[in-house]
Amino acid sequence: MALIVQKYGGTSVGDVDRIKNVAERVQETYEAGNEVVVVVSARSGVTNDLISRAKALNSTPDEREMDRLLTAGEQETIALTTMALHSLGIPAVSRTGSEAGILTDPNHTRARIKEISGGDLKEQLAAGKVVILAGFQGHSESGEVTTLGRGGSDLSAIAIAAALKADLCQIFTDVDGVYTADPRVVSKAKKLQYISYEEMLELASSGSKVMQNRAVEFAQKYNVNFEVRSSFNRNPGTIVKEEVKSMEDVVVSGVALDNKQAKVVVSNLPDQPGAAATLFQSLANADVSVDMIVQNIGREGKANMTFTVARDDVVRAEKAVQSAFSDVGTGTEFESSEIAIVSIVGVGMRTHSGVAATLFDALANTGINIQLVSTSEIKISVGIHPESAEDATRLIHSAFGLDTV
Amino acid sequence: MALIVQKYGGTSVGDVDRIKNVAERVQETYEAGNEVVVVVSARSGVTNDLISRAKALNSTPDEREMDRLLTAGEQETIALTTMALHSLGIPAVSRTGSEAGILTDPNHTRARIKEISGGDLKEQLAAGKVVILAGFQGHSESGEVTTLGRGGSDLSAIAIAAALKADLCQIFTDVDGVYTADPRVVSKAKKLQYISYEEMLELASSGSKVMQNRAVEFAQKYNVNFEVRSSFNRNPGTIVKEEVKSMEDVVVSGVALDNKQAKVVVSNLPDQPGAAATLFQSLANADVSVDMIVQNIGREGKANMTFTVARDDVVRAEKAVQSAFSDVGTGTEFESSEIAIVSIVGVGMRTHSGVAATLFDALANTGINIQLVSTSEIKISVGIHPESAEDATRLIHSAFGLDTV
Repeated sequence: MALIVQKYGGTSVGDVDRIKNVAERVQETYEAGNEVVVVVSARSGVTNDLISRAKALNSTPDEREMDRLLTAGEQETIALTTMALHSLGIPAVSRTGSEAGILTDPNHTRARIKEISGGDLKEQLAAGKVVILAGFQGHSESGEVTTLGRGGSDLSAIAIAAALKADLCQIFTDVDGVYTADPRVVSKAKKLQYISYEEMLELASSGSKVMQNRAVEFAQKYNVNFEVRSSFNRNPGTIVKEEVKSMEDVVVSGVALDNKQAKVVVSNLPDQPGAAATLFQSLANADVSVDMIVQNIGREGKANMTFTVARDDVVRAEKAVQSAFSDVGTGTEFESSEIAIVSIVGVGMRTHSGVAATLFDALANTGINIQLVSTSEIKISVGIHPESAEDATRLIHSAFGLDTV
Repeated sequence: MALIVQKYGGTSVGDVDRIKNVAERVQETYEAGNEVVVVVSARSGVTNDLISRAKALNSTPDEREMDRLLTAGEQETIALTTMALHSLGIPAVSRTGSEAGILTDPNHTRARIKEISGGDLKEQLAAGKVVILAGFQGHSESGEVTTLGRGGSDLSAIAIAAALKADLCQIFTDVDGVYTADPRVVSKAKKLQYISYEEMLELASSGSKVMQNRAVEFAQKYNVNFEVRSSFNRNPGTIVKEEVKSMEDVVVSGVALDNKQAKVVVSNLPDQPGAAATLFQSLANADVSVDMIVQNIGREGKANMTFTVARDDVVRAEKAVQSAFSDVGTGTEFESSEIAIVSIVGVGMRTHSGVAATLFDALANTGINIQLVSTSEIKISVGIHPESAEDATRLIHSAFGLDTV
């Protein structure tokens, strides 16, 4: 008998038929003799509906009231999922985040988990019950309902798995697992059997988002192995875990494409302390998230700084740069353009030389110009013209032998 | 400065614009220097949607889970209404039934209120805040969320008004108040300025349902005066309160029509102890609600029993009668037909003779045959053919001088 935590996302519980499907999968797991905790999200669309109603009434809704509003979504799905299990004859009981003792800090809409007591979950499981737990939510010391931020149900699942010392944690979603590249772009993309926490994090930040990054970080911190798999078929998914020896044979695990970026090139920035700080403080004040940053020293002690932002943010970014310029002196110029970021990710890179060379070579051979390069320990990202982005992704996928993994 | 409890029903908070309208009315009341507690229902339609989802998953959903499910509806509206007030610059805070200390028995889906502590409502009001309270819900001693049954938000409002010793309780709904008859049937129907608790209860049980009967009973028990009025206009409503001297001048306060009834006539029922009990136990087992019951002794010690049920229940009622017959002996027969019930209600009847005679006379003069009569202290109901129902209602309205009140 194992203790299994299963998490089903919004699309997996999107309507009555899908909730029935979830109940049947839970039934199988339960009837195979396991203890099962099921974490569910709000039905897909519900959270967005609630947010749009809130925004229609108040452009800056109170965060406590926002948490109260949004947690109604999971409250609905835990009750419905529990009822669906009952109708299959499975004893089940619903629990809110607060009932499961998920204690958070008091920061509404973006609370961080402080401690998980588990409430009476162990007793309910011991009594033979399936526990249906509301994802996304917890409670503060003063007893207020809090939420863990968008996608927080993944974190709920990982965290409750850690707290209960679960044998297995399964994240059911609408994709089969983690692929070497987006199968819509690279037809030869393969599903990975394993991936390390670090690679999963780098892939997510490079445009291949399968689940919330905070959940992966939490899993890494508490060493919770988990599987990402589809709730719509029976295919095995991808196991996410600590890097293991055998993984090192594979240099690159995947290729990620983010074709929704823009680059902003700032030239003739004074090469002096504080200039960059002024620039990025201005961007932060405008609530613009900056992804990659690259800086070179140019002529006459002036620096060239290139950074990328989400394409939707580019107008705000330009205004922020303009306003920063009044502080950093004259002669500074900027221009922005659309860019695609292609990244390769793999823990094998650490110990293999020539990875960057292989990448650059593959692109050069087909005449794709590299506008931007950024590297981390297990990732290399290149910025290229959006028109070449999908070709480049396929080329790179082949160049690192991923077509035949 | 007065403490005012306002209750807004599902249609009054049915969409974002209507919630804004509610917020503006609350603002007026607050800015006039009053302390305000606002009780809200779920948006109209939401509760039915949730119930239909539940029924699609489980024909007999667990009642604890049902309460958890349905209370999500009010959780949404308290948060949205609070946000709407914030955007008008009014300090407001939402409270669940549990936070307001509405303690109930543990009977999920139909809990009865045991005690109301009020939680921190007095402190919030003293601090200048409007409190937005979730209607329909409370909590049991073990901390489980419970609900007060359909229409329970009326009860929440009356009960919190009693607990806080409010100066005024206003039930905002989609009608202007309580009328002498349904204005859609009787064009000369007038809105009543006052009505007694008892009349309100009798009218509701006679087809003129404005609000939940339990709420009216609760108001009567704790002597909470309240006003029923529309949230869509500024017309004064109807004050519901203890009977006062001046009310006695009016013999009949209103005429109610229930044109959704059926009568079942059971003839040759053995006139012996237990026969009626067997019959009505069988109906209760089939979950058929019986409204009027009339019995006459017929020939040879056999009784004739007539009762009315909702027209939708007539097939189940017939089956229940049939099954009871196997126990009460042979020779018993029954037939059912559609019937309309017209009732006159008025505390003045108690001290005025000739009320029944006036009623029967009005019907006889126009050739309307009376199939059934039932009386209580402040009500007389007659069963007539559904075709004559609306004419009869208008005739009776005139006969008792209500056209010119």
